[in-house]
Amino acid sequence: MADSAGTGGVVLAVDIGGTKFAAGLVSQDGTLMRVRRVATPPGGDAETLWKALEGLLDGLVGASAGAARPDEVTGVGVGSGGPMFWPSGEVSPLNMPGWRAFPLRDRIAARFPGVPVRVHNDAICVAIAEHWQGSGRGSENMLGMVVSTGVGGGLILGGRLIDGGTGNAGHIGHVVVDPVGPPCRCGGRGCLEAIARGPGLAEWAVAQGWRPGAHAQTGEGLYKEAAAANARALAADAKEGDPIAMAAMTRAGRAVGIAVASAASLCDFEVVTIGGGLSQAGPLLFGPLEEALREHARIEFATRVRVVPAALGQEAGLIGAAALILAADRYWGPR
Amino acid sequence: MADSAGTGGVVLAVDIGGTKFAAGLVSQDGTLMRVRRVATPPGGDAETLWKALEGLLDGLVGASAGAARPDEVTGVGVGSGGPMFWPSGEVSPLNMPGWRAFPLRDRIAARFPGVPVRVHNDAICVAIAEHWQGSGRGSENMLGMVVSTGVGGGLILGGRLIDGGTGNAGHIGHVVVDPVGPPCRCGGRGCLEAIARGPGLAEWAVAQGWRPGAHAQTGEGLYKEAAAANARALAADAKEGDPIAMAAMTRAGRAVGIAVASAASLCDFEVVTIGGGLSQAGPLLFGPLEEALREHARIEFATRVRVVPAALGQEAGLIGAAALILAADRYWGPR
Repeated sequence: MADSAGTGGVVLAVDIGGTKFAAGLVSQDGTLMRVRRVATPPGGDAETLWKALEGLLDGLVGASAGAARPDEVTGVGVGSGGPMFWPSGEVSPLNMPGWRAFPLRDRIAARFPGVPVRVHNDAICVAIAEHWQGSGRGSENMLGMVVSTGVGGGLILGGRLIDGGTGNAGHIGHVVVDPVGPPCRCGGRGCLEAIARGPGLAEWAVAQGWRPGAHAQTGEGLYKEAAAANARALAADAKEGDPIAMAAMTRAGRAVGIAVASAASLCDFEVVTIGGGLSQAGPLLFGPLEEALREHARIEFATRVRVVPAALGQEAGLIGAAALILAADRYWGPR
Repeated sequence: MADSAGTGGVVLAVDIGGTKFAAGLVSQDGTLMRVRRVATPPGGDAETLWKALEGLLDGLVGASAGAARPDEVTGVGVGSGGPMFWPSGEVSPLNMPGWRAFPLRDRIAARFPGVPVRVHNDAICVAIAEHWQGSGRGSENMLGMVVSTGVGGGLILGGRLIDGGTGNAGHIGHVVVDPVGPPCRCGGRGCLEAIARGPGLAEWAVAQGWRPGAHAQTGEGLYKEAAAANARALAADAKEGDPIAMAAMTRAGRAVGIAVASAASLCDFEVVTIGGGLSQAGPLLFGPLEEALREHARIEFATRVRVVPAALGQEAGLIGAAALILAADRYWGPR
């Protein structure tokens, strides 16, 4: 790693998700230089999951060809699915039953003694990345959203990440958009996530009579494999003009628009970045989103809010995790 | 003012409201020592309003008996009805048409040269006061609400006031609690304020058949004068068991509860203080509020939120305004 050693070492960035673990080396100027991924061992117990992560990290730091030397690593930033204890970094990712209050931060710190190891929520890392290097760059006040299997986010106000009391500020998924709406997996009702999360949306469409893949054979590239009744197939069918699939996108877009209107009034930000699988539906989602947002965000200061697609794609989580170390003055609050 | 001179001078605190102007002298330890009030000249033009304010201040700082000497004043903090340009302090209070982009900060600064003069929204000053000296004291993460003719608030996260991009963060009144709810004066629909502001609530009750004062003659102290179809009369009648008035309080309480659930999920705070006229309805408001809050705030970190009545009453605005000077490290963000 002559490249990185020459510029003051590297940061190891880690992204812990329910379907994959990813890790990367990030230079001091914030460039993601090398990425490895591995599928999350399905149903793995705590040590099986840990071994998979260790193997991934070994390929990036250690004796492997192209790996950084351990003494080049100046810090480790981690984004993980929640819930978690923060900032102590014991994680209980919803889709990873093998880890319950697993001491992820401590275990990584034991492998990288003497450097900071910082863990935050994955959606917050994505928001940080979009603010640091993505489509929220240059804004002092921003909400970064992820609309995917869940709906999450992170909040930047006054140019700094807002953590809230437990590290969960920005979690827009449980803003109520319809008080008599569908039940949410949190136990509440009418939360944004209950309506707009991919699986919820697909379920709604199926209940309306949608059968996935009717249009798949004519779809393009990315969507050719559409077949399961999931949000990706739904987005593909919506693009092909399936009326129920289009109605589902409208339903999700309007729900996001109402939640953003509420959040903009409460938090007084100027930009919202939207990433995650559903954001790839493009105008089918963003059109109804804008419409509902403009209907509801009418108090003057809230009318200035702009909604933009996220810019960084699937590597956002790693970039944001690196920022916990490389731009800690803005993105890491605990003292 | 030997008292104040002995402890390093006084802060002049000012509260600009649609029905009254208030001003006070506050010692360096945050004690409100002397208060004067004057009715806001109804329909007054810009200079008429300014003269009324000047007269009020003259009685507190200058040659009057008991007044502070001008050289004792170490700063001026002002809470004003909005909207306003912030932090420059040009104000356009909704209920004071005579002031539109009136340079309130500059005019006061010209009278008190050489000391800081800071203007913020009145509801934010109330929230600051409740955090500094009231029922939010000791919490690092808090929403301070005012439920009155309007519904506003201020947000403290990480122990510091959150301003947002235009000084409006915490403005919970335009969080959407019912997307198909009544129109709001902001131009939106189903905002908390549209449902829970006093006049809106009274209007709803009248539409349901409520006639104010039916129970007033048997009411207690504060509410004896109830007669007009306003929120105070409504609260009085609710306490007397009038079913429509009680339903109105339930309607307002549930709306506040839903908005607080959304805000707690988004901002991750632990305490909400509720002040303003409607909060005096007590359990008739707080009962339904708690019920709706617990139904909707179900994600784990949000379940910890506690809702408490504000502690400081009508002097909160002055105390918070003084904190813009006396505790600027926590409550005044602009640099």
